[in-house]
Amino acid sequence: MENNKLTELKHKYEQFKSRRLSLDMSRGKPEKAQLDLSVPMLHMEDSFISEDGTDVRNYGDTTGIPEAKRLFSELLGVPPEQIIVGGNSSINLIHDALTRALLCGPMEGDTPWAKLPRVKFICPVPGYDWHFHMCGTLGIELLPVQIDSNGPDMDEVERLVLDPEVKGLICNPMYSNPSGITYSDETVDRLAAMKTAAPDFRIIWDNAYCVHHLYEDKRDSLKNIYDACVAAGNPDRVLMFTSTSKITFAGSGISAMAASPANIARHTALLTYQLVCYDKLNQLRHVRFLPDRAAVEAHMAKHAAILRPKFEYVLGVLEKELSGIGSWSRPRGGYFICYYAPEGCARRIVELCREAGVTLTPAGSSYPGGKDPKDSTIRIAPTLPPLSELKLVMELFPLAVKIAAAEKGII
Amino acid sequence: MENNKLTELKHKYEQFKSRRLSLDMSRGKPEKAQLDLSVPMLHMEDSFISEDGTDVRNYGDTTGIPEAKRLFSELLGVPPEQIIVGGNSSINLIHDALTRALLCGPMEGDTPWAKLPRVKFICPVPGYDWHFHMCGTLGIELLPVQIDSNGPDMDEVERLVLDPEVKGLICNPMYSNPSGITYSDETVDRLAAMKTAAPDFRIIWDNAYCVHHLYEDKRDSLKNIYDACVAAGNPDRVLMFTSTSKITFAGSGISAMAASPANIARHTALLTYQLVCYDKLNQLRHVRFLPDRAAVEAHMAKHAAILRPKFEYVLGVLEKELSGIGSWSRPRGGYFICYYAPEGCARRIVELCREAGVTLTPAGSSYPGGKDPKDSTIRIAPTLPPLSELKLVMELFPLAVKIAAAEKGII
Repeated sequence: MENNKLTELKHKYEQFKSRRLSLDMSRGKPEKAQLDLSVPMLHMEDSFISEDGTDVRNYGDTTGIPEAKRLFSELLGVPPEQIIVGGNSSINLIHDALTRALLCGPMEGDTPWAKLPRVKFICPVPGYDWHFHMCGTLGIELLPVQIDSNGPDMDEVERLVLDPEVKGLICNPMYSNPSGITYSDETVDRLAAMKTAAPDFRIIWDNAYCVHHLYEDKRDSLKNIYDACVAAGNPDRVLMFTSTSKITFAGSGISAMAASPANIARHTALLTYQLVCYDKLNQLRHVRFLPDRAAVEAHMAKHAAILRPKFEYVLGVLEKELSGIGSWSRPRGGYFICYYAPEGCARRIVELCREAGVTLTPAGSSYPGGKDPKDSTIRIAPTLPPLSELKLVMELFPLAVKIAAAEKGII
Repeated sequence: MENNKLTELKHKYEQFKSRRLSLDMSRGKPEKAQLDLSVPMLHMEDSFISEDGTDVRNYGDTTGIPEAKRLFSELLGVPPEQIIVGGNSSINLIHDALTRALLCGPMEGDTPWAKLPRVKFICPVPGYDWHFHMCGTLGIELLPVQIDSNGPDMDEVERLVLDPEVKGLICNPMYSNPSGITYSDETVDRLAAMKTAAPDFRIIWDNAYCVHHLYEDKRDSLKNIYDACVAAGNPDRVLMFTSTSKITFAGSGISAMAASPANIARHTALLTYQLVCYDKLNQLRHVRFLPDRAAVEAHMAKHAAILRPKFEYVLGVLEKELSGIGSWSRPRGGYFICYYAPEGCARRIVELCREAGVTLTPAGSSYPGGKDPKDSTIRIAPTLPPLSELKLVMELFPLAVKIAAAEKGII
């Protein structure tokens, strides 16, 4: 880059900095207008009996009320009796499923994983930092596998699972965090059918964005991995998860796990003395507000109407300002846009943004241990700030990219 | 007993049986009228900002909103910053605290208990079956220690904790399930000060009935064990738990853990990637309804007004019908009356009741593995059935006791 062009960029950057803004783009949180969409759910009428006659205000069945099982059955594509409806966090359901495998074994008679010298999980990258930290906390070693537009490199996955210490894989398969990609049918089939050395291998299928489309017409679709596992003769391989955290309230929603009858029986048995029951009143509140898939779809269209302009704005700026500098995802759903900076620039870009008052997700956080081998991936989370703030952030971001790239002599 | 007297008892028993009732006295659940007391809590106004400025509908702090910490601080007697406010189940908080000790170690640097050949916990008996099942599921071996009116036999406890494999003790210290007793100040002091071989010994102090008095004037009081632990130089020894399950809604309440600053820091760090946050909307709903201890006390008086006549009715029948046959507790709070049948009769009494249409808690369930060495303890749970049904049950119960005792030649 010519010297006077870099000087001009730095001048603009200093001008931005002098505005002393403090903006947070680090988290995939819904904005206030999205939360307001579900407030009517709280005006629940004073009747508390679920379909099976349970007073939801009292203790009761650990696996959830029937109408909530039916709702998640529609969303996840498995029969209602293969659903456990949980509390306010699917991350918590995932954590509990892993701790059960570690302390009790995935099935009766399996060696508890905590008794083994080492437990390894495959994690497609870039991926969701919460998954990585959770596995790290539980002592599970992570093996990153690069994704492309079809999902993880399946040749590499099939090679790794020949190691009996590799006990599982953890992923967001649809509108993936942060890449936005959705696994292809072939990827799903290969995951379901691959030969694993560990007979108790589990896929943690965190389908957090299963109904989180940005467009009515252009949508990704994800093949039902449970059906694929059954077809391949591996019905117990997959544990599927989702929640309403980004449908109703983040932190006050309900969640679900779906799996084979044998897995559900195992988890139900272990769940029984882990808690008395999940919050069935909140389950009933949810199904009264969103009784079926159609109601969920109509509600999600309202979210999309809020989110779409933000995603389109960010993509428009990237297109206009950074054409030829790095690349980025063009997701059709989910919560993130992924910007792939020129190699070696991501940390510097995030640092430049931070110094100018904009907090992005730390560079590297989409890789286990925070180690992005190319120092390239930056997760852009456009959902939390209102559009007015997002516009400010997108004034800064291309400047930061260009300065970092120019410093490296890349442009 | 004379033959014709036994014949008369059996005749009455058969008459009762012929009514073909189906009554459930097995669980410590609140009755509908109690649940109705908290329905106004659900009519929450549409404002969602907690004291620290958090929109409780969104993701946020893992440890809970400040006003909920303050409420539990008042109930548990530790500073608000030493509280983690949880979800709908203190049993779940206990379970999670145990799994963290098992998988990560009680403190940074401690050996995770799951890596040890054996982990043992002391459990005062008769005790709470959910504790026993939970420990069993997690692979913790239980060492029962008999309680008397002051709590567990402390000589025996002090002897057992000299074994380094004994890592903890789990109990209900107040209005204990099922005995109704409250630990004496001396018991609390000895638990706090005793020399344990395991430096990472933990007392799981499940203070489920901390404000659950039956009388305004006659009340048990429990010494603050955290203060006692601090005084004894063992601040990290105790983890205290409670919930609103029997204050507001069983299954839709909020819960809390209180402990030393070091324990709270450790659990907060491990909690962070276990879930994103607990249901802060439900926390705010609770503190709006019950802002402080005074509000809780006033609310608990309404529960007591419903429960007291039932407890008194049961005690009256026992007094009248079973004087000299077995013995029983006269609790001043909590959820249970404990009937100690003549030795060897408990199973038979529960069986006789079941055959006549009344389900009691299984005999033996107050002991680990269901093994009551004297086959004597029966937990009576008078809370769930309305008084009219309770009266029916108490027609049957003395009959069953007398028949069982007569069959054994005891009366």
